Amino acid sequence: MSIKCFQGHNDIYNGVTIHSIEEPCPITVFSECLKASLETWSEQKKRTIWFRVHLSHSEWIPILVQKGFKFHHAREEYVMLYNWLNKEIVCNIPPYAHTNLGVGGFVFNEKTSEILVVKEKNSIGNQFWKLPGGYVEPGENIDEAVQREVLEETGVQTTFKCLVTFRHAHNTTFNCSDMYMVAYLIPCTFDIIKCQTEITECRWIKIDEYLQHPEVHETNRIFTKKMIEFLKNPIGITAEHGTHPITKKPICIYSISTNKNICECKK
Amino acid sequence: MSIKCFQGHNDIYNGVTIHSIEEPCPITVFSECLKASLETWSEQKKRTIWFRVHLSHSEWIPILVQKGFKFHHAREEYVMLYNWLNKEIVCNIPPYAHTNLGVGGFVFNEKTSEILVVKEKNSIGNQFWKLPGGYVEPGENIDEAVQREVLEETGVQTTFKCLVTFRHAHNTTFNCSDMYMVAYLIPCTFDIIKCQTEITECRWIKIDEYLQHPEVHETNRIFTKKMIEFLKNPIGITAEHGTHPITKKPICIYSISTNKNICECKK
Repeated sequence: MSIKCFQGHNDIYNGVTIHSIEEPCPITVFSECLKASLETWSEQKKRTIWFRVHLSHSEWIPILVQKGFKFHHAREEYVMLYNWLNKEIVCNIPPYAHTNLGVGGFVFNEKTSEILVVKEKNSIGNQFWKLPGGYVEPGENIDEAVQREVLEETGVQTTFKCLVTFRHAHNTTFNCSDMYMVAYLIPCTFDIIKCQTEITECRWIKIDEYLQHPEVHETNRIFTKKMIEFLKNPIGITAEHGTHPITKKPICIYSISTNKNICECKK
Repeated sequence: MSIKCFQGHNDIYNGVTIHSIEEPCPITVFSECLKASLETWSEQKKRTIWFRVHLSHSEWIPILVQKGFKFHHAREEYVMLYNWLNKEIVCNIPPYAHTNLGVGGFVFNEKTSEILVVKEKNSIGNQFWKLPGGYVEPGENIDEAVQREVLEETGVQTTFKCLVTFRHAHNTTFNCSDMYMVAYLIPCTFDIIKCQTEITECRWIKIDEYLQHPEVHETNRIFTKKMIEFLKNPIGITAEHGTHPITKKPICIYSISTNKNICECKK
């Protein structure tokens, strides 16, 4: 087997990314191919070398680590390692995403002044009545996520109106930070079909009773007070879907709206 | 060398996490120790086995992968692999954080009606005048992050007042989603000391001139219109620092404030 250099993909930061799936290399010659490639990249004054190593090529990893590579991030099927070659400049590679984004739904029935609450099965604080909700999935918008989570957990269909408040915390799941956004939703259906795997209890409760309930923790009490203020004076954070001018990808811009329609039920 | 089972740390989800640093194991016996441990964990009906493998133990990785482990996430010094043992239940492990959190500062000098803008060195769209800003660091609050980034990039010291708008996008850096929050800041100093490594140009510009400038992209034009509305009718998203009732960790709650003081300069 001859020794070839890896080709990879160049980026605008003078880096190269090698995908193991695109350039498979037998483990018997990997070490030599890597050595030859690193010499070439050093001559070319490349700044950062990235190796995206698929599960099926995980034998590459100890060899990359021996050559000074470090981990950057991983997804289920691959781990990304990098090596900052230019030792004269301080490495300025940003760390991988470290914020979990979650949503909770304030599903308010204006006729009965009730909101929809749940108790979770597997969580710290599962003795508390909480808002239905969960994590935003990769690529999902906040308005979609909260409607999906409420439907999954409670069976209630809703319409997203606006965000009212959000909470930022650190050192949560997997040592990440956590952003939890509370959305005001209008129920379109009212019958509860509880999620059997995630939820132990689900009910409609008068908003005033929830505010006083002993099984409601302080942060949710604060959110409820904010929601009661909002219902009196409906100023919310509404979503406008658009397109990014440079990347041409869909974006969503959130901003404060004083439109009184925000608080009206779509019927 | 005798074959020992790994001990690890139990969690509330019936999982076990092994830290390679805490339980080092020579590579010559790792495979046998892992086999014996997996048998024990299966008998104990453990649900998920997590291995946090340090760079210095990266030879464990190919062996773990052979036994069905997949990647979950990685930090510079370690990669976390997992194996969902209970094949009767669908794996419900949430994916790792996939949201980058960034901030931009609207630094407004009310005496001159000018804002502070920059052109970045290494970025897509470096021809555009943008707001100074950058990524929120792990464990950092949004208000701290935006003041730090503005100071690093422009040398201008500021006071955080509130958030005015934010943008959510998908498939950005490392295929993550991206949340970019725009903060209203009051300048405490006015002399520009430009960051040599990240910024090519930095200046104060009349807000009306910025709005019309050809080198301003559409999203920043939208943000500027939102900011002009805010200056006329100061309703912002303000931050209240507190403590989480269950975890006892510091949290920050953001909510809408109509307090007119929001728009006053602290002098």
